[in-house]
Amino acid sequence: MTTTPPLPAYPTTWKRRHLLELESLSADEITTLLDVAQQLKDATDGCRRKISLLGGRTLANLFFENSTRTRNSFSLAAKRLGADTVEFSSAGSSVSKGETFIDTAKTIQAMGVDWVVTRHQTPGTPHLLARELECCVLNAGDGAHEHPTQGLLDMLTIRQHRPSLAGLTVALVGDIAHSRTARSNMWGLRKLGAHVIVCGPATLVSPRWTELGFEVAHSLDDILDRCDVLNLLRIQFERFQSRPFPSVHEYANRYAMNGQRMRRCKSDILIMAPGPINRGVEITPEVADGPHSVILEQVTNGIAVRMAALWLLVGATEESSTAAITGGVSQHG
Amino acid sequence: MTTTPPLPAYPTTWKRRHLLELESLSADEITTLLDVAQQLKDATDGCRRKISLLGGRTLANLFFENSTRTRNSFSLAAKRLGADTVEFSSAGSSVSKGETFIDTAKTIQAMGVDWVVTRHQTPGTPHLLARELECCVLNAGDGAHEHPTQGLLDMLTIRQHRPSLAGLTVALVGDIAHSRTARSNMWGLRKLGAHVIVCGPATLVSPRWTELGFEVAHSLDDILDRCDVLNLLRIQFERFQSRPFPSVHEYANRYAMNGQRMRRCKSDILIMAPGPINRGVEITPEVADGPHSVILEQVTNGIAVRMAALWLLVGATEESSTAAITGGVSQHG
Amino acid sequence: MTTTPPLPAYPTTWKRRHLLELESLSADEITTLLDVAQQLKDATDGCRRKISLLGGRTLANLFFENSTRTRNSFSLAAKRLGADTVEFSSAGSSVSKGETFIDTAKTIQAMGVDWVVTRHQTPGTPHLLARELECCVLNAGDGAHEHPTQGLLDMLTIRQHRPSLAGLTVALVGDIAHSRTARSNMWGLRKLGAHVIVCGPATLVSPRWTELGFEVAHSLDDILDRCDVLNLLRIQFERFQSRPFPSVHEYANRYAMNGQRMRRCKSDILIMAPGPINRGVEITPEVADGPHSVILEQVTNGIAVRMAALWLLVGATEESSTAAITGGVSQHG
Repeated sequence: MTTTPPLPAYPTTWKRRHLLELESLSADEITTLLDVAQQLKDATDGCRRKISLLGGRTLANLFFENSTRTRNSFSLAAKRLGADTVEFSSAGSSVSKGETFIDTAKTIQAMGVDWVVTRHQTPGTPHLLARELECCVLNAGDGAHEHPTQGLLDMLTIRQHRPSLAGLTVALVGDIAHSRTARSNMWGLRKLGAHVIVCGPATLVSPRWTELGFEVAHSLDDILDRCDVLNLLRIQFERFQSRPFPSVHEYANRYAMNGQRMRRCKSDILIMAPGPINRGVEITPEVADGPHSVILEQVTNGIAVRMAALWLLVGATEESSTAAITGGVSQHG
Repeated sequence: MTTTPPLPAYPTTWKRRHLLELESLSADEITTLLDVAQQLKDATDGCRRKISLLGGRTLANLFFENSTRTRNSFSLAAKRLGADTVEFSSAGSSVSKGETFIDTAKTIQAMGVDWVVTRHQTPGTPHLLARELECCVLNAGDGAHEHPTQGLLDMLTIRQHRPSLAGLTVALVGDIAHSRTARSNMWGLRKLGAHVIVCGPATLVSPRWTELGFEVAHSLDDILDRCDVLNLLRIQFERFQSRPFPSVHEYANRYAMNGQRMRRCKSDILIMAPGPINRGVEITPEVADGPHSVILEQVTNGIAVRMAALWLLVGATEESSTAAITGGVSQHG
Repeated sequence: MTTTPPLPAYPTTWKRRHLLELESLSADEITTLLDVAQQLKDATDGCRRKISLLGGRTLANLFFENSTRTRNSFSLAAKRLGADTVEFSSAGSSVSKGETFIDTAKTIQAMGVDWVVTRHQTPGTPHLLARELECCVLNAGDGAHEHPTQGLLDMLTIRQHRPSLAGLTVALVGDIAHSRTARSNMWGLRKLGAHVIVCGPATLVSPRWTELGFEVAHSLDDILDRCDVLNLLRIQFERFQSRPFPSVHEYANRYAMNGQRMRRCKSDILIMAPGPINRGVEITPEVADGPHSVILEQVTNGIAVRMAALWLLVGATEESSTAAITGGVSQHG
């Protein structure tokens, strides 16, 4: 009645049990994550169908910042692979009864979960968890530090439109100072050979990024014609205590991608945005809904890279390559 | 070890991918929904067991008004058919970060969901979604406009107690002005041949409903002896800015179904209420818990009609009648 | 490819459909619950894998007090056995629209659920539900009355470290006045033959417990050397209107388990706490993380006893020992 979709082979070289940041991953590891994500996307009809690679496993979301999109993306990735999910959040939880963060996480682990996905306003929180827990830890955003699955999904999206990331010029535009998405893109893209420009007002883009080898630009118009990809970051108004620019209008005037600027770009430019987008601020409807926009593909690829990460990480904890009972990781090939 | 329950045959005449309102459905389409709902109820031991007709599919709830009951009813209907569910709500979501409603919905769709179930205070919102999305859209209540699955479950409940809806007299009592449940009942019942009376204080029941062919009554006592069914709507106090009647006591005095009024009804009168009920306001405990009350049957039938709608809508998007991998719709018969 | 894990035999002596309190259970019933919990823990690799004993069943959480831990523990227990779960809570629910508690519960039951798990600030609420509902009712905490699964998981944890509960001396330390955990431990432990001491300041430990046969102590230091188990209750600051002791420091000084007190205990003392723990109040990090602490084992055992309760209760509602379709209880042996 059906043909079994082709499943990825478990890469014997994969050893990591946690996904904390892209900065410390090797180019090979990132490539493995992207390859597996692509295979799982293909095997699930574009992330729309279910395969039971991880039946019996359980993912716990432990989010200390509001999130619907990322949280649900992880949950859906787990469910697509047959795993169960359970939600913990800071509101109404034991943390408000005086429990420490680590005790909360260890309690969740003791309920038998295989992955803890965590978002926290403090950079390094997932690293702390990874040292204390035996289950897999995934960083879903730690302060302004990293958001590795966002970086991976952005890279997967580019790779689906280009033969290689090597040699591409990718500009990250907007609030670099507060963006963990920017950080993960910067490290990940550079490891795979792309040239990265960070672009935005001087209040949001430090010139010292040049010391780490990134190109810094304060004028979008100056770099437009050199870019293969523009990744338009949302201005995170909720994180500002004072305004980093005179007005939203002023920002949009200098940095919004609009039809006029599009005409000065390469003919095959890719327009990306991590979302949620603010139409009229960093992007106009003409561009967001135009033929160069791959914004919704990024969302779908978010499921794919999260499926890949869940499968790879938990497989690295298995003693051997044989699948255990219901909860085992089927390692094909 | 088991006998496979009889499953409904997929009706080849069904073409719709969205369930937005009953007003635009044909009598045949409504009958198909009710027939399939009854078959699925029977096949699941009264909506208490699971059949995997829709394994691998995903339902997203996108609710912009508080709801536990309807939201969970849709979720349970999906789970009874083997589908997964994911919850989005307005609080803490990307909408509060400046994202448009359509962008939120398209993002959810890009995560690979098959159905978006939506509730919104603005009439027409689900129709807007249906134009923009490729997945199935179900209206779980749009302002005071319609709540089609509520209408269907009310009709299914009546049909389980009567050979036909044609020729029955059904009174909807209470706050017609604010009730989407009333609207869906009115259109649906009339299409299947019932005579519909809308009854309540003049502040809540416009005389102009007569122009659309409905009977208007302001005195419950005047119509009691003619009714086969009374559907007692809750006074939605949370929607009023000023009181539409002098006091709750005054309302109850004129419109509450109580034991005294029951004795003036037909001997086989059916007492319905969409719930949550306010005991002592629109209904007394004697009536709510009495032998004519089918209020809890309505709740069970809510699962049945939602299962039917999910199965019918998603089947209409399949290219052919052959089931796909895990996520396919099994179309028996 | 796999060996089927050994599944417990359904005990033919089990007749209860509800788990409301330990006070009214017999020693045999408690032992059955603990035996089945241990078997299910073993069969699921320490509560980390899934067995489909209860596929097609649905658990509803109906919590009127905040809870993440207990709620998720019940949900995970259900999922580990293949059941689905649905969440109801007081916020945003129909109760705020004027619905009675019983009507809410009956509505949930009418959606076809098999278990209602309830937590409520009013003692006796689950007993009320059990009288009104046909599905299984589990008490997840009713005021200061009982929290039976917490009592069971504490007893299971002790039993995993000792040949028998009979003859052991177990001290419950802290806020006995407000603790449903204390109540369930007291009744359960005594039924299985343990000697129970309740220990804490006179404002939190009534001398009248002696009339019911429990030993009362106001000095932890006086009883330390006699105890086999110390169960350290959290001071539930959120329940106090006035302070029951001069300061947290004063409380910790007299009742906190610390390294110094540990050295005066039996060499195989077990340190337990229902969690969340307040480090530095009732327990110091040295003790919480020390070799005698079984606090995280308690969490895992919580899944086990809840799996056992769900399986036993729903099995008692089956007419015969034959499993029904998907939703049947497989009764092995």
